[in-house]
Amino acid sequence: MTDLVQRLLGDDAQALARAISLVEDHSARAPEILKAAYPHTGRATVVGVTGAPGSGKSTLVDRLVASYRQDGRRIGVVAVDPSSAFSGGAILGDRVRMQGHALDPGVFIRSMATRGHLGGLSRATNDAIDLLDAAGYDPVLVETVGVGQDEVEIVRTADVVAVVLVPGMGDDIQAIKAGILEIADLFVINKSDREGADRLEADLQGALALAPGQRRPRIYRTVAVRDEGTAELRRGIDEALAAGRAQAPDARRRERAQSRFLALLGEEILERVTTTVLPGRALDDLVSRIAERHIDPYSAAQGVLARVEVR
Amino acid sequence: MTDLVQRLLGDDAQALARAISLVEDHSARAPEILKAAYPHTGRATVVGVTGAPGSGKSTLVDRLVASYRQDGRRIGVVAVDPSSAFSGGAILGDRVRMQGHALDPGVFIRSMATRGHLGGLSRATNDAIDLLDAAGYDPVLVETVGVGQDEVEIVRTADVVAVVLVPGMGDDIQAIKAGILEIADLFVINKSDREGADRLEADLQGALALAPGQRRPRIYRTVAVRDEGTAELRRGIDEALAAGRAQAPDARRRERAQSRFLALLGEEILERVTTTVLPGRALDDLVSRIAERHIDPYSAAQGVLARVEVR
Repeated sequence: MTDLVQRLLGDDAQALARAISLVEDHSARAPEILKAAYPHTGRATVVGVTGAPGSGKSTLVDRLVASYRQDGRRIGVVAVDPSSAFSGGAILGDRVRMQGHALDPGVFIRSMATRGHLGGLSRATNDAIDLLDAAGYDPVLVETVGVGQDEVEIVRTADVVAVVLVPGMGDDIQAIKAGILEIADLFVINKSDREGADRLEADLQGALALAPGQRRPRIYRTVAVRDEGTAELRRGIDEALAAGRAQAPDARRRERAQSRFLALLGEEILERVTTTVLPGRALDDLVSRIAERHIDPYSAAQGVLARVEVR
Repeated sequence: MTDLVQRLLGDDAQALARAISLVEDHSARAPEILKAAYPHTGRATVVGVTGAPGSGKSTLVDRLVASYRQDGRRIGVVAVDPSSAFSGGAILGDRVRMQGHALDPGVFIRSMATRGHLGGLSRATNDAIDLLDAAGYDPVLVETVGVGQDEVEIVRTADVVAVVLVPGMGDDIQAIKAGILEIADLFVINKSDREGADRLEADLQGALALAPGQRRPRIYRTVAVRDEGTAELRRGIDEALAAGRAQAPDARRRERAQSRFLALLGEEILERVTTTVLPGRALDDLVSRIAERHIDPYSAAQGVLARVEVR
C-alpha cells in the first residue's frame, strides 16, 4: 500500500485517484495511506471558493484553473458536492464541467460526495487535499456550496477564502452574507453584468463597514462565462494570501490540524465504543427503546459513557 | 430546573424560550432539562421544509403557519440558519419575517444558529424540536437551507419533507435536485408565476421517473408572496404524512432516535477523552506537532485511542 503512495508521490495520477477513492470509501487501508503521505504535505496553498447554488462558482473555478496553468502550476481541484449525499451523484452523473481541462495532466479534478455519515464529508475532503498536496499539486482549490455548516467548516481553514455572490438573488442571500463575512478574505461578485451588481456591492460594503475588526476584504467583479475579471481576481487571491501569511503565519494550518484531529478522533472513538458496548442488535434495541420513549437519549449516552475508562 | 420543564409543559412560552436557549448554549443544565422533557415528546408531527437560498421557503412557511392556525393547531417553527454560524446572527439581527404571527400565542418561532461546533447544529435543532413537542406544539415545522450535509441530515428524519424549488435558478440547482430526490416526500415549485416553471416541473418529473423505487412525490405549485397554492400544498402534506405512516410506521422516528443518540454519544465521549488525555496545553501541543508534520493525525488519534478502555 505504501507502494501506492510512492507512485502518487512520483506523479502517477491513477495512483492518486485510487488513493483518494480508498480514503473516500473509508477503506481499512486509508490510515496507512494517509500516514505515509502526511510527511509530504504542507507545501500546497489551499484556496477555498464558496458560494450559493447558482452563483456560477464552478465556472469561476474553471477560469482560475486556466490562470494557474498559464503560470505552469500543477493544480488540484476538490469540488465538494454534498447535495449528492443521498444519491451518490448517480442520477445526474458525474461532474461534466471542466471538460476543457480533462486532458491536461497538470490538472487533477475530484468531486467529493460522501453519504450521510456524520462529519465524513469534512474528513474525506481534508484527506483528499492532503493527498493532492503530497502529490505535488499547488494550489489546491476547494469548491464548496457555502451554506451548510460542514461546508463552511471545510472552507474556513483554507489559506485564502473567496466568497462568490451574484446580483439579484432572494432575501436569504442577505443572511448568508452575514454568516460568511467572517470567513471571506475576498468577495467575488460574479455575473456582474447583471442588474443589481452595484447595489450588491454597496450592500456588501455597508455590511463590511459595520463588521468588527480591521479586516477589509476586497470585492472583485467577474463575468466568469466570458472570462472577465479573472486576472484581477487571481491577483487579489495572491495578495490576500501574502497579507494573511504576513499577519498570522500558520494560524489557519494549526486550526486545520486541530479540526482534522478532533474529527478523526471523535469518529474512531465512537466506532470503537459502539461496537464494543452495543454489539450486533444491541444498538438497534437501545434505539428502539429511545424511539419508544422508554429511555431518553441523554441517559442512554450516560449509560454507555459509564463503561468507557480513560487511562 | 425541572421547575422550568414543568412550566413549559404548562404552556409557558417564556419558560420554553429559556429552555431552548440553555440547550442551544450547551449549558450544563441541558441534559437535566431534556431528560425531564423527553417522556412528554413523540406526539408532534415534524414537517421539514427545505430549499436553496432565494427559494422563498420562509414566506411559504409563513403561509403554512397561517393554514395550521386556521385549524386551531398550536404550531412551532424551528428555522435553522447555519449561515449565521460565524456571526451569531449579530450583524443583520434576528429574523424579521413572520412578524404577522409575532403576537399569536399559538405560534412559537425559533431561529437556530449555533457556532461552528461539529455536529452541534443538528443536536441543538433536534433538542429544540423535542422541547416544542413536549410543550404541546403540533406540528413542528423545521425550515432548513437544503444544501449542506448537516441541514439535509436534520430534515431527513422529519415525518414529512417538502422540498422547495424555484424556476430560473442556475445549473447548480440541477445537482441539488439529484441530491434531494431521495429525501423529498413532496416538491413545491414556489414563485411558479415565473418563467421556467413548466420546464422545471417537466425536468423534475423526468428525474423522478428515472429514480429507483416506487415513491412518486407529488409536485405542488405556489406563489407564496400572494398566498397562492397554500391550501393545496397543505392538503398534500397531510396526504404524504398519512401515506408515510401507512407504509412505514415509526421508521423515521427510529432513524431520528438513532442519529440523535450517536451524535450525542460521540460529542460526549470526545469531550471526556480529550479533557482527560490531553488536558490544558497538551491538546495545543499535539496540534502544533501535527501542523508541523512531526506526527500525522492518524497516529496521533491512535495514540489517544490506546488510552481508552471500554468495559
